[in-house]
Amino acid sequence: MSEPIFFKRGGGLSVGEIAQLTGAEPGQGARLDRRITDVAQINRAGPSDLVFLDRPQFAQHLPETRAGACLTTDQYAGRAPKHVAVLRTREPYRAFIAVTRTLFPAASRPSSLFECKGIATGATVHETARLENGVTVDPGAVIGPRAEIGSGTIINAGAVIGPGVRIGRDCSIGAGVTVTHALIGDRVILHAGCRIGQDGYAFQRGSKGHEKVLQLGRVIIQDDVEIGANSTVDRGGIRDTVIGEGTKIDNLVQIGHNVLIGRHCLLAAQVGVSGSATIGDFAMLAGQVGVSDHIAIGEGAVVLAQSGVGVDIPAGERWGGYPAMPVRDWLRSYGQLRRMGRGDAADKARGPAKEDK
Amino acid sequence: MSEPIFFKRGGGLSVGEIAQLTGAEPGQGARLDRRITDVAQINRAGPSDLVFLDRPQFAQHLPETRAGACLTTDQYAGRAPKHVAVLRTREPYRAFIAVTRTLFPAASRPSSLFECKGIATGATVHETARLENGVTVDPGAVIGPRAEIGSGTIINAGAVIGPGVRIGRDCSIGAGVTVTHALIGDRVILHAGCRIGQDGYAFQRGSKGHEKVLQLGRVIIQDDVEIGANSTVDRGGIRDTVIGEGTKIDNLVQIGHNVLIGRHCLLAAQVGVSGSATIGDFAMLAGQVGVSDHIAIGEGAVVLAQSGVGVDIPAGERWGGYPAMPVRDWLRSYGQLRRMGRGDAADKARGPAKEDK
Amino acid sequence: MSEPIFFKRGGGLSVGEIAQLTGAEPGQGARLDRRITDVAQINRAGPSDLVFLDRPQFAQHLPETRAGACLTTDQYAGRAPKHVAVLRTREPYRAFIAVTRTLFPAASRPSSLFECKGIATGATVHETARLENGVTVDPGAVIGPRAEIGSGTIINAGAVIGPGVRIGRDCSIGAGVTVTHALIGDRVILHAGCRIGQDGYAFQRGSKGHEKVLQLGRVIIQDDVEIGANSTVDRGGIRDTVIGEGTKIDNLVQIGHNVLIGRHCLLAAQVGVSGSATIGDFAMLAGQVGVSDHIAIGEGAVVLAQSGVGVDIPAGERWGGYPAMPVRDWLRSYGQLRRMGRGDAADKARGPAKEDK
Repeated sequence: MSEPIFFKRGGGLSVGEIAQLTGAEPGQGARLDRRITDVAQINRAGPSDLVFLDRPQFAQHLPETRAGACLTTDQYAGRAPKHVAVLRTREPYRAFIAVTRTLFPAASRPSSLFECKGIATGATVHETARLENGVTVDPGAVIGPRAEIGSGTIINAGAVIGPGVRIGRDCSIGAGVTVTHALIGDRVILHAGCRIGQDGYAFQRGSKGHEKVLQLGRVIIQDDVEIGANSTVDRGGIRDTVIGEGTKIDNLVQIGHNVLIGRHCLLAAQVGVSGSATIGDFAMLAGQVGVSDHIAIGEGAVVLAQSGVGVDIPAGERWGGYPAMPVRDWLRSYGQLRRMGRGDAADKARGPAKEDK
Repeated sequence: MSEPIFFKRGGGLSVGEIAQLTGAEPGQGARLDRRITDVAQINRAGPSDLVFLDRPQFAQHLPETRAGACLTTDQYAGRAPKHVAVLRTREPYRAFIAVTRTLFPAASRPSSLFECKGIATGATVHETARLENGVTVDPGAVIGPRAEIGSGTIINAGAVIGPGVRIGRDCSIGAGVTVTHALIGDRVILHAGCRIGQDGYAFQRGSKGHEKVLQLGRVIIQDDVEIGANSTVDRGGIRDTVIGEGTKIDNLVQIGHNVLIGRHCLLAAQVGVSGSATIGDFAMLAGQVGVSDHIAIGEGAVVLAQSGVGVDIPAGERWGGYPAMPVRDWLRSYGQLRRMGRGDAADKARGPAKEDK
Repeated sequence: MSEPIFFKRGGGLSVGEIAQLTGAEPGQGARLDRRITDVAQINRAGPSDLVFLDRPQFAQHLPETRAGACLTTDQYAGRAPKHVAVLRTREPYRAFIAVTRTLFPAASRPSSLFECKGIATGATVHETARLENGVTVDPGAVIGPRAEIGSGTIINAGAVIGPGVRIGRDCSIGAGVTVTHALIGDRVILHAGCRIGQDGYAFQRGSKGHEKVLQLGRVIIQDDVEIGANSTVDRGGIRDTVIGEGTKIDNLVQIGHNVLIGRHCLLAAQVGVSGSATIGDFAMLAGQVGVSDHIAIGEGAVVLAQSGVGVDIPAGERWGGYPAMPVRDWLRSYGQLRRMGRGDAADKARGPAKEDK
């Protein structure tokens, strides 16, 4: 069950409305006028909660569930107790997610932490900044000279928007975020503590130590991008750093200068992408992956967790390991390594020789 | 020696008081009324400093130390110069730590960075927030609607507490920290820049790209938890993310949504725990360890630095490697890998064959 | 081309002035009075832009470039179109960097995000803090009791400077940075969200769980150090954490308590250095490297990306791997591992035996 102190519930939906919304088929005898106001796990639900069931490991909970309604497949539909309104669908989880979005519309993106509208007392907005109507600025936020912010965008408490930055409409800029040297599209979510647009890491060895190579590019963040808490995106050196439309980046991720990330990519937590790397559309990098500089990862490629990518990865391939290699090779080599660890690898390698005796 | 501009010293302790506090036994001729006001390393100490000695590699410094008093074991006690008040104890380091806590009570948790009491001018507290007496709020902090904060808690400069968040007593919430959708116990320390309660990273593939799976859970942080600077803890999706009593988390750690961490765990810097993983009581994860989603790490298990945990780890076991395996296997397999690197592995593998000749 | 909304251009330089500044030799017929106001990539330049060419892979763009001037070597100088003022030099990139520094002097370090001078309305400076003339403090910044800040230093929006902290001259302290228990030299750059001076991670097992070991040291940051966004540097326990002169640290790096980093080191993004490690002058750690506690890395050593350093590394050596070993060993062992993955390793190992048959 969601916590009412954090998530406001509206009037809810009737079982009939849920059927209509999701295309699910109500089971025999399902009371279509029953009111659903919340969602829950199947083993923790109450009578006004919607649950879903699509996997055998949770099926044991179905007979005892106290849920009001359950989205499930034909496989399980017959086993529900009578008080549960069954809603049959091929994709229970997808339907469930759609219902949550209707029940809790405010949870779809971070909202004002001060629940204010317009520009709060205690926010600092430069006189030359241009904010469209319908921008929310929390206390403690600072918006610099010539910044431009589109309607519906929320700037959370303590966020800092630098000179000339442009932010589109319906964005959520999290608490304590910093944005400089950046152009940001519509419906972008930057979670708390993101750092966008600082200097890339570039030095050349001089007579007195390392000298900074000036970073004269920008960060371009396209529509519908989401970036996790405390992640960092450096601006480009001489070209721009670009994050393509719909790409979702998790927490504590590092994106170096000049990096080009395509559309609809997924980068999990603590990934690091070094300078001037390029990542194709729909690529997926699992947690703690590292990508060396100037590497190209092809469209739709998948890289397993903690891998170290030191060579280009062709489109559509699955790679893993340190250093990264095609997954099938990695599994085989690590299987062998594992056997060595168990003490039977050496035997195996020597086996044929021994048999020669 | 501690720096007086950062750490205020009180009146100090006499050698006799230190003996009493720690249960250490004063050596012959130790002046019990000597005043100790600070602590130091044995080779950098002055006459009003307490030092400790419990390891052979520092014993060389004992004859020349200028310290006023030294906590040490029977083994070294006889070698101290006459001007040092010797205090014999089986566990010198433990005794030393206890004395520091008495000498510098203010250093046991982060204090107000503005040295203010009560709510500073320049702090923004929502009119519906409820703060017990004895809460300190630094300038630049923002406390949202319906937040509740217990007595003795310090909210540092620039911290942001979201709507409805509950924080217990005697907590220290660091500068620039963000807390939303969370219930926090007593004596919790969140170091600067922590991000607690933002959306977990959950999307489903839709017709127009990745669609957000709403995150309707909370973060529960139990008593005596400490979380390091710039670490991130996502709130749960449909259940809560929980950090158990007494668990200590280092800097730049990522805790995904729905993660359940037990009591008295230790998670070192840059660890990443993926969504829905569970970690048993007293488990220890060393630096940069990654844990895959839905993994269970048993009570008291130990995972070595940089390991990648992709399978469950039974209680009490020590694992390491990428991918992680039991430590003895890992050491053996990497030993062999290392030998391959040196060029003698292949020889070794071929050895028996050669001998066959 | 740089973006004029983010980078202010001055009057520019003539080709003759660029020749003088860099020591480059103008080609025949180069118009020395041509005005250069910006820099660009060779394939994106316009008539008032300077470009450089030093590598064969960009030489294809030379015949079509629309640049006003090009720094290049003798090898390419003859192939430039007539409208390009050619400037010959042995090190085109170095010369190019020098010119950018003259064209965009403001980009050499982060500047005020509110473009303010002096102490902004909305900044909070404690009455006992001592700021030299010429300090800039952005709105939302908080400067604590007895802090001392030198002339020319910029404190960005939302930064928090704790009690007694000393910061030298001409530093840039980024937005949302926290500094406590630290002494900072001149010309230091801390990028947004850095956390300097919080407690190191040190506990001892007590009867009621883990007890904090007080952290009574400081952080010393010497002249010309640069630290990336959201990086964390813990203060020392009983000695200081020190970052040596000219060392450059990237984003999301963790530096543990008591760590001693030498002069002119380079630490790339997401590196983690555990407590009490020491790193010699001019050492280089690539991205995501982890260094165990109490390890010593010698002067000028180089550690490859993602390596896990568990033993001391001698001065001047190149190491890589997990666990780290000398690079030549690592390449050999992973080459063999890779061959195992491809399925030909076992054959190879067995080869001689088979031949024996």
